[in-house]
Amino acid sequence: MPPETAQKASTDVRPGEVAVPLPDRFDASLYFIGRIRTPWKTRKECPRNARAARETGAVCTLEVDPRWSRALAGVETCTHLIVLYWMNEARRDLVIQSPGHHPGGRGTFALRSPVRPNPVALSVVRLVKVEGNKVEVVALDCLDGTPLIDIKPYFATTDSIPEATVGASAEKLK
Amino acid sequence: MPPETAQKASTDVRPGEVAVPLPDRFDASLYFIGRIRTPWKTRKECPRNARAARETGAVCTLEVDPRWSRALAGVETCTHLIVLYWMNEARRDLVIQSPGHHPGGRGTFALRSPVRPNPVALSVVRLVKVEGNKVEVVALDCLDGTPLIDIKPYFATTDSIPEATVGASAEKLK
Repeated sequence: MPPETAQKASTDVRPGEVAVPLPDRFDASLYFIGRIRTPWKTRKECPRNARAARETGAVCTLEVDPRWSRALAGVETCTHLIVLYWMNEARRDLVIQSPGHHPGGRGTFALRSPVRPNPVALSVVRLVKVEGNKVEVVALDCLDGTPLIDIKPYFATTDSIPEATVGASAEKLK
Repeated sequence: MPPETAQKASTDVRPGEVAVPLPDRFDASLYFIGRIRTPWKTRKECPRNARAARETGAVCTLEVDPRWSRALAGVETCTHLIVLYWMNEARRDLVIQSPGHHPGGRGTFALRSPVRPNPVALSVVRLVKVEGNKVEVVALDCLDGTPLIDIKPYFATTDSIPEATVGASAEKLK
């Protein structure tokens, strides 16, 4: 979404939500390195979140642009991957959001919503197989055709924190 | 790094490394939402990786631009966060790299190296405290002043895979 569109939209917020003016310039740029193929063609069909996506067991495919396909060498040795993708339809100007599970409002950086200053989404997925420039994984909750930004190996030693919690007790905004 | 610089550098590779021409245009753009303050002022001082950074126990600070500070509401309820940041000095055109621990060469998407088409780095950190627009965390391995892109809550249910492995047996390139 160009910043003009988001700024125009910034008056259109739900009760409890807060929008801010976007910066007048960008600081860095991304290449889309491919597309994500999923069974979900409309938002309504998409699983509610990453957990729900995993429970479907649906195999999704990361289609890497041939330019970058040699960068997949070694990916087949990973059981799990971190996938970064671009939520290109998300507005970028909300600092407080009111999703259904946080009706009182919650800060964008305490949510995994696609609505954020930089709509880079992150999912941890299980690798099924690598074949040429295609990587089959379980599972992603995004729309078919979503732009792919990065693929990283998942290291349990640094990426897995089984005891991590997100407290439900401090929902109130200060 | 502007693409011209990276393309110019693409002939300058180590044995076993492979560079590709970069696309002639970008597809999306990022805002830097703040800076990361770390004790590491030079590359030589930086911990070798995320694990080494954690072992130092060093407290690093995410300084969020005041424009976005309200988006931190609720972050204080998280024990752990996912931090995305921009490795602005990394070249973007290598598909096969030869780091010290993979001298035979390995695909970029099987490495956590900052050298990648989109140099978005990811670290899982432990939250120490949130104070105004500052978030203290343990620990990051990046240079002081590194641009911040995003902060996300870490959910053990979807982000923690203790049994994940990255195989050491399939180092050979196909």
